Amino acid sequence: MSLTEDIATLAQAAKTASRQLSRMDTEEKNLCLNSMADILEAEKASIQEENNKDMELAQKSGLGQAMTDRLLLNEGRILAMAQGLREVAGLPDPVGKVLTKMKRPSGLKLRKVSCPIGVVVIIYESRPNVTADAAGLCFKSGNSTILRGGKESLNSNKIIAKYMLKACQSVFPKFPQGAIQVVPTANREAIPELLSLTKLIDLCIPRGGEGLIKTVTECSKVPVIKHYKGICSVYVDREANLDKAISVVVNSKTHRTGVCNAMETLLIDSVIAPDLLPRIGKALANKGVELRACNKSRAILGDDLTIPTNDTDWDTEYLDLICSVRTVDGIEGALEHINTHGSGHTDCIVTENESIAERFQNEVDASAVFWNVSTRFSDGGEFGMGAEIGISTDKIGARGPMGLAELTTYKWLGEGDGLARA
Amino acid sequence: MSLTEDIATLAQAAKTASRQLSRMDTEEKNLCLNSMADILEAEKASIQEENNKDMELAQKSGLGQAMTDRLLLNEGRILAMAQGLREVAGLPDPVGKVLTKMKRPSGLKLRKVSCPIGVVVIIYESRPNVTADAAGLCFKSGNSTILRGGKESLNSNKIIAKYMLKACQSVFPKFPQGAIQVVPTANREAIPELLSLTKLIDLCIPRGGEGLIKTVTECSKVPVIKHYKGICSVYVDREANLDKAISVVVNSKTHRTGVCNAMETLLIDSVIAPDLLPRIGKALANKGVELRACNKSRAILGDDLTIPTNDTDWDTEYLDLICSVRTVDGIEGALEHINTHGSGHTDCIVTENESIAERFQNEVDASAVFWNVSTRFSDGGEFGMGAEIGISTDKIGARGPMGLAELTTYKWLGEGDGLARA
Repeated sequence: MSLTEDIATLAQAAKTASRQLSRMDTEEKNLCLNSMADILEAEKASIQEENNKDMELAQKSGLGQAMTDRLLLNEGRILAMAQGLREVAGLPDPVGKVLTKMKRPSGLKLRKVSCPIGVVVIIYESRPNVTADAAGLCFKSGNSTILRGGKESLNSNKIIAKYMLKACQSVFPKFPQGAIQVVPTANREAIPELLSLTKLIDLCIPRGGEGLIKTVTECSKVPVIKHYKGICSVYVDREANLDKAISVVVNSKTHRTGVCNAMETLLIDSVIAPDLLPRIGKALANKGVELRACNKSRAILGDDLTIPTNDTDWDTEYLDLICSVRTVDGIEGALEHINTHGSGHTDCIVTENESIAERFQNEVDASAVFWNVSTRFSDGGEFGMGAEIGISTDKIGARGPMGLAELTTYKWLGEGDGLARA
Repeated sequence: MSLTEDIATLAQAAKTASRQLSRMDTEEKNLCLNSMADILEAEKASIQEENNKDMELAQKSGLGQAMTDRLLLNEGRILAMAQGLREVAGLPDPVGKVLTKMKRPSGLKLRKVSCPIGVVVIIYESRPNVTADAAGLCFKSGNSTILRGGKESLNSNKIIAKYMLKACQSVFPKFPQGAIQVVPTANREAIPELLSLTKLIDLCIPRGGEGLIKTVTECSKVPVIKHYKGICSVYVDREANLDKAISVVVNSKTHRTGVCNAMETLLIDSVIAPDLLPRIGKALANKGVELRACNKSRAILGDDLTIPTNDTDWDTEYLDLICSVRTVDGIEGALEHINTHGSGHTDCIVTENESIAERFQNEVDASAVFWNVSTRFSDGGEFGMGAEIGISTDKIGARGPMGLAELTTYKWLGEGDGLARA
């Protein structure tokens, strides 16, 4: 068969399976998820064997140390995958929730009810544990999943998906093959083929670096929800409380650096910069943060503590102990900077002035806008979602942290007594 | 300037304006909408003058009668546009609604709040009144609008948008030019240019025939919500009540034929077809409906009342007094037919059996799934939305009738007291 036919067969199987998944009740889905966890634990040795193949190929092909580390599935990581699936089993079922209910003057009884999206394609990079995490969340929300990881993790991804499917089939012998599938080829052409099938694929979620997300968006004919970079800013207003400012800024930057909700840019109101910036700057420097500062900030902080910014710093997600620093002319300047250079992920204002905070929260165009809160709180777990598939920087469909509910859509169910329109 | 530069300038102006629109309160927006209505009424003569230019060009270029009719702006249609804008002013503001509110154990106070999407591109065909309807709805929901109508209506669209903008500027002298814009060229390349600007354009809504929607989806790099055709089916189950079946079927097919929520396909359970089909078929034939029937249905209805179906009938939106008729093997057959040939718009079951109805409503993958209700009720007005921009057949973002609320997105607003993550 040609690649085109292979991919069409895969997608058709997913669509068919999605209809069967939409019929499963909560208990049945949880049985499957717990069975998946059991099998991943029981088969950890054979999963590691397949992962070894990937690791060997990666070393031969000269994959970097960081990538190889992410590729590794040691016992701890396999047990963590299993634990993750058990946690998803414990979360409430997002399907079948009545979101709105009304009776219209015509006599029409109407309910807006959450339902699965259908077939979701997840495209990701080298971390093979995403296979179990993403497929588990999609499954609980009633969707078929087509997984496309990095080519270097193909053997690992295949065996994880195989065991997840086997687990479901051990509980329900008629469980459909198409419910959880890994694209079985490393051929790059598979992605545009898959994402051209608008009648079979309902959604694509790419997770990874900017290059991956751009490639997917460029070629996709199906809806894409992007989990894009986080260029998160904290703006310290003239009416900020110093202690709160230090707490929020230091936590946002240094609590974890390699994550999308870490602060990358510190904006400080020029009115209080001479007073506050030295103290905030020192607190960051004490944590080992390199400060790339605008000229005005450098004049305050001194050349020892800072280096000059280059042309791209305002638009860079460092994911490291580096921070851009800029003085701005009050809230206007902060809004202008964020709405120009931000990535629509998470931004924060530190101020004691409620109306300034309200304006900032209204006018910053981002998925999460915080007031006196560390950007690190922009997270499915912190929002009470229990688990997340990522943080959407899009505005159509899910925005911000995406948990189970964000993997559903809705339909309108109408009821009447032979109702005809007059 | 090149087309690329022109389009980028237009889109940048829309983005800048969208920030100003997001600051406007309900009263300010309603003042503008009522002022737009006043000016369209006052300027009806000059609007008709511009419309005459379009009509003359259309006649010269041999545009068909139906298209030319749709292009015409007579006094009644202009007053209807104004009235529509006044009605939108009277609807509740969809922006700033608190959708979820919680306090997390961490101390994080969290609100999920509706907000404008940003910049919305509307692409439509010859009916110039869409200009006012769509721009009015987008404006009330706080979005900038970029309008792209058919080339044959460019003069009409331009003058309508010009007066809408003028109306806002008469109320607020600083009202931004970029809030309501018509793409000023008929050049086809403008569409892909516009829809490649992922940083400036937030959403595209194409409204029109299948060809238009396909073209837009093919070329767009920004999210698209499609208002696709309605191949709506009514399935008459073996446990249907005959009176309700006739009421629903006849109303679905004949109440208005040229609309997307009209029934195109009648499915009848083979078990009751010999009994019910002659009566339902006769009721439709009495209304002048041509019945294109499968062999089994023809054997029951007879050759006088029916013609055979061709290969494409199951997938055709007739928008006319024509109906496909097929006997199916119970609910399984109905689900199989609908999930294969339907367009995900609106489908209905007629039955007295609640559990069969529930299964149908769960398993049909459409924006609206009705039980003993005419498909004609799938409509923003009937759903209490007040006005609609169309009916989405997509599942990401708005699904089904799209009113003001469906033209918003949401953001997460967090509040704390210098909250840092442990």
